Amino acid sequence: MKWEYTFSFGGVLSRVCIQNDIPSLDDIVDSNRGFSKALLICDAHTLPIAQQIRGSQEAPICELPPGETAKTWASIETILEAAKDAGLGRDGLFIGVGGGVISDMAAFGASIYMRGAGLCIVSTSLLGMVDAAVGGKTGFDLFGMKNFVGTFYPAPLIYMPIASLSTLPQKEWKSGMAEIIKTAVLDTADTGETFWSLLVNMDPSLFAIDATEEKRAEILECIAYSVQIKGRIVEADPKETGKDRVLLNLGHTFAHALESSAGLGRVSHGEAVAWGMVRACELGLALGLTPQARGEAIVNLLRSFGYETAAPHPLISDVSAFMQALQGDKKKKAGNLSFVVPSQTGSVMVSGEQVSSLLLTRIIGGTLS
Amino acid sequence: MKWEYTFSFGGVLSRVCIQNDIPSLDDIVDSNRGFSKALLICDAHTLPIAQQIRGSQEAPICELPPGETAKTWASIETILEAAKDAGLGRDGLFIGVGGGVISDMAAFGASIYMRGAGLCIVSTSLLGMVDAAVGGKTGFDLFGMKNFVGTFYPAPLIYMPIASLSTLPQKEWKSGMAEIIKTAVLDTADTGETFWSLLVNMDPSLFAIDATEEKRAEILECIAYSVQIKGRIVEADPKETGKDRVLLNLGHTFAHALESSAGLGRVSHGEAVAWGMVRACELGLALGLTPQARGEAIVNLLRSFGYETAAPHPLISDVSAFMQALQGDKKKKAGNLSFVVPSQTGSVMVSGEQVSSLLLTRIIGGTLS
Repeated sequence: MKWEYTFSFGGVLSRVCIQNDIPSLDDIVDSNRGFSKALLICDAHTLPIAQQIRGSQEAPICELPPGETAKTWASIETILEAAKDAGLGRDGLFIGVGGGVISDMAAFGASIYMRGAGLCIVSTSLLGMVDAAVGGKTGFDLFGMKNFVGTFYPAPLIYMPIASLSTLPQKEWKSGMAEIIKTAVLDTADTGETFWSLLVNMDPSLFAIDATEEKRAEILECIAYSVQIKGRIVEADPKETGKDRVLLNLGHTFAHALESSAGLGRVSHGEAVAWGMVRACELGLALGLTPQARGEAIVNLLRSFGYETAAPHPLISDVSAFMQALQGDKKKKAGNLSFVVPSQTGSVMVSGEQVSSLLLTRIIGGTLS
Repeated sequence: MKWEYTFSFGGVLSRVCIQNDIPSLDDIVDSNRGFSKALLICDAHTLPIAQQIRGSQEAPICELPPGETAKTWASIETILEAAKDAGLGRDGLFIGVGGGVISDMAAFGASIYMRGAGLCIVSTSLLGMVDAAVGGKTGFDLFGMKNFVGTFYPAPLIYMPIASLSTLPQKEWKSGMAEIIKTAVLDTADTGETFWSLLVNMDPSLFAIDATEEKRAEILECIAYSVQIKGRIVEADPKETGKDRVLLNLGHTFAHALESSAGLGRVSHGEAVAWGMVRACELGLALGLTPQARGEAIVNLLRSFGYETAAPHPLISDVSAFMQALQGDKKKKAGNLSFVVPSQTGSVMVSGEQVSSLLLTRIIGGTLS
């Protein structure tokens, strides 16, 4: 099985190949005619995949420390230095092999190397596939804030080799599945109901690709749906200056604050998003924007997949510190926060002006009712 | 007197205001409706101008260490932190007040702050006005290489207040004038001859804005011509992926290598460009691309303005180190250098493949004839 989608993000064509096998350097180079030298970027977990991609070719591999805590300028500088040492010009090709952290950093490095080099992302985690790999957002963390620094730099070529998921830890499956559920909530196209039923009828213990052929096909379908839906939203609003792309942040205002206040890396992005979606449902319900039945369906689905849904979150010891992290959100406009909450069929943006801090404190502290 | 030009650089409208007075924060804000908070970025030399722009308004000023040696990631991080501390969102406005170093860094900071904030450049040096301020190139130096890291991020609003030139040191005048002469060499439009005659008939000792009204008008005219010519070239090829923008690098392959091998900051950019243009004329002559009379006219004009034209350059003690710096040029494609040399009327690109290293060594070492 193989799916291919080509999106146009602000004039840049971005081709996504969802396929079983890990691509070879030849596959990637064939699709990237005109580039001169390549650099593979990975971490300890994805080093074997990078080596498999390289095969017997000569291409340097830049291995970064793994995890969100390594998403720093120091890692970016390591990438830039490896590219320089390998003699890459601005027609060189950066190949990021990994999950969201690696692909965000490889893409940021490519975007600033001599003012922009070539880029290919080989996404190796479920979260990376359905979230970071598509849509052109790049970046790293600074001053304790996630992706505080970044660019928009869509990769012209993205591979999602399902084979790379076979060794994915349970925690990573769970992290990716939350973004898949979020994407299904956003889906207002005719696929919406099909996608939602697929999730509702899925075996929630299905956190392994080595399951039966039938179950593996379900995961593949989820990835393909998610990529299509996200791609369509980003095409409509590539730099998040309009009203479309911001909807992808359903649950994310709460999630980013949870990730920041818990300490970067202590809660997985997807788990934070799942928890944030429940808060978004509560907010939408309180504001009369989320129908009760829809809110319940979303929360029930998240609970069935084993996500933490209760407030306060076990990692929040101090609601006021959380409120402060919330205020640091970079989506603020004219000093105001914004939230995205589920609506009757899709989702809708709510300006922070419409939300009292008392209501927020109650939602976060779990003292709503 | 006031000139205004609006260019479209890859879809971004960039308005350039060449005027006598330093703009006020109100002027800038009026032209940038919709932004929420502003941060002024300057160095010790331009601090008084930044203070004058701010007036009695409340806007933080981020003062960076002056000079090319401060064009580092540390300075970028200082800008980002000042923006964060001032509470700028992605709708905040970065205002770079200074020459090329400050405007390149302020623009780079704006381009990566939360994936892109607002940007206004107030260019205060002759070189900055005719070179860095227009065209969207941003960046800083890394691994000893000029602008090794950067982005394309055109400023929607650029001021060139001539009043800020009144305190410009002689060395800075000379640096800017070289880029003006280079731009005149590139000019193939109907303005070309007028611009060139203006320069040829100019009093080369005219390195002060406090000269007579008539002489000041000449400088203004040079800036306006240069901005128009550069703007037109960049409009045709905003990201230097085509064949147009690269022509702006006339003399620059040699100049960048001179700047790198002399040690960043030891020779001014314009003086390096003037020296590099002479080398480009010699290369063009040797390859039969530059007519002898044209090469002589260019070299004579540069000599009359007092530029170092002889090879080897007094700061080059080691021709082989220079050759190595040349090989590090970031304009390399498929591992090959490129050069731009004057042609009959404009200029033309030459691939490094056509240039033997023996010829280069002779040009750089001054042993050509």
